[in-house]
Amino acid sequence: MRMTKAELTAFLERDFGQVAGDFAIERVGPEGLVLRLRVAERHLRPGGTVSGPAIFALADVAIYLAILSRIGEVPLAVTTNASVDFMRKPTAGRDLLGEARLLKLGRSLAVGDVLVFSEGAAEPVARAGLTYAIPPAR
Amino acid sequence: MRMTKAELTAFLERDFGQVAGDFAIERVGPEGLVLRLRVAERHLRPGGTVSGPAIFALADVAIYLAILSRIGEVPLAVTTNASVDFMRKPTAGRDLLGEARLLKLGRSLAVGDVLVFSEGAAEPVARAGLTYAIPPAR
Amino acid sequence: MRMTKAELTAFLERDFGQVAGDFAIERVGPEGLVLRLRVAERHLRPGGTVSGPAIFALADVAIYLAILSRIGEVPLAVTTNASVDFMRKPTAGRDLLGEARLLKLGRSLAVGDVLVFSEGAAEPVARAGLTYAIPPAR
Amino acid sequence: MRMTKAELTAFLERDFGQVAGDFAIERVGPEGLVLRLRVAERHLRPGGTVSGPAIFALADVAIYLAILSRIGEVPLAVTTNASVDFMRKPTAGRDLLGEARLLKLGRSLAVGDVLVFSEGAAEPVARAGLTYAIPPAR
Repeated sequence: MRMTKAELTAFLERDFGQVAGDFAIERVGPEGLVLRLRVAERHLRPGGTVSGPAIFALADVAIYLAILSRIGEVPLAVTTNASVDFMRKPTAGRDLLGEARLLKLGRSLAVGDVLVFSEGAAEPVARAGLTYAIPPAR
Repeated sequence: MRMTKAELTAFLERDFGQVAGDFAIERVGPEGLVLRLRVAERHLRPGGTVSGPAIFALADVAIYLAILSRIGEVPLAVTTNASVDFMRKPTAGRDLLGEARLLKLGRSLAVGDVLVFSEGAAEPVARAGLTYAIPPAR
Repeated sequence: MRMTKAELTAFLERDFGQVAGDFAIERVGPEGLVLRLRVAERHLRPGGTVSGPAIFALADVAIYLAILSRIGEVPLAVTTNASVDFMRKPTAGRDLLGEARLLKLGRSLAVGDVLVFSEGAAEPVARAGLTYAIPPAR
Repeated sequence: MRMTKAELTAFLERDFGQVAGDFAIERVGPEGLVLRLRVAERHLRPGGTVSGPAIFALADVAIYLAILSRIGEVPLAVTTNASVDFMRKPTAGRDLLGEARLLKLGRSLAVGDVLVFSEGAAEPVARAGLTYAIPPAR
């Protein structure tokens, strides 16, 4: 591991100030990273469900941080592909937890997937697969 | 067509009040719908690029409105799958336009895709394919 | 579980005669299903790699059988979406194993994902997410 | 354009001998490429539908050839991601046509999408988005 939970949190606050308040890193380790979305009014859609873009953001940031935990700060890594299955309505009034794992960490591409759960629920709200392009000069 | 541009705009403002200010419907017709994302500070990521979730939201809302333009108000239609290719960095200081077309409008599933451009640019920023589940009782 | 390994194997041979010889069910249980692709010359591409369509077929059939193991024979279930990340070249001369898990088994849609490994390898060759539409009258 | 229809056909026959008989290049030009799948018994599934893997192969080969038409022979380009929406049952007894367009042709990644039609039908059978990694030394 190249970056700890504290270092990743500091990075998030510094470089992603606008959204850093939405997220909290729960755990980080060789097996992956768990990221919390602190669900607030601005993440909701009619009917009380968490919006698709908010779930997308949770998955996207979770994989990004998982990559950084392994290779260190690479602020120019960019998402090239994301595929998301939305499966269940989130539980009202609960945060969402994104459980990210890296499946490939190559020189130029990293691939991971994320299962998103309402906190305390057994069945996932969503599943996402993401690919990041990693800049060559690192 | 079941809903006009004016009706869709009114629906967006009433039911999606939180994000309605982000979007403007440019055109709607049998061939599809063009939706503008009024890019603002809150949509940006480090480096001045528009965030992935903001691009996702543009594609998601564009297809949703394209479906409604054809079948009328179905507020409970939900996204079940979205696959996005992020291809180019958006042009700084420009709005994004999402050109949505419906490829299938079945009884229970609707499928469409969206090309996203920086306004005035010839080459797309992103491409998205989305599936919506349509509730049975309509 | 509604169908055993033996019943699923019989179903595969009867209804998918053309491809049944390509596959062998390794394990089936509440947590998912493992399907083997018996890699043969016809699955290979230049350079000795297993073709994308063969990997796709492995993932597709694995999820299909996992669904049947839970709801019984539903021969008209159809794939509506598949998203595949190809991550590594398969090991030459080895079979592929697809480890499928169901993430959602609803009345009309089932969603699962599959990790594909070369037999004996620790890191996945591919990852796939698939959605099946299940016919209403079951 | 770096390769003509005749050159692409010769490449397909030489390097993809096993599947070359399945396909015929209909058209190739700056706007894209149209590839025919000569549907035969081996491509069918129960109920007479064309199998998902056969549709996947059509989309995959169509984009590959579209890339080659623009950059010349790059036999080691590999698919890194494919996302397919299966929307309608193909018309029985008809070939499939895949209409591929390139949306991005970068130094290391190429992205395209494909609409698949039964010959003579107005509405698409499937839609696919594909990403290819292009080897650095070209």
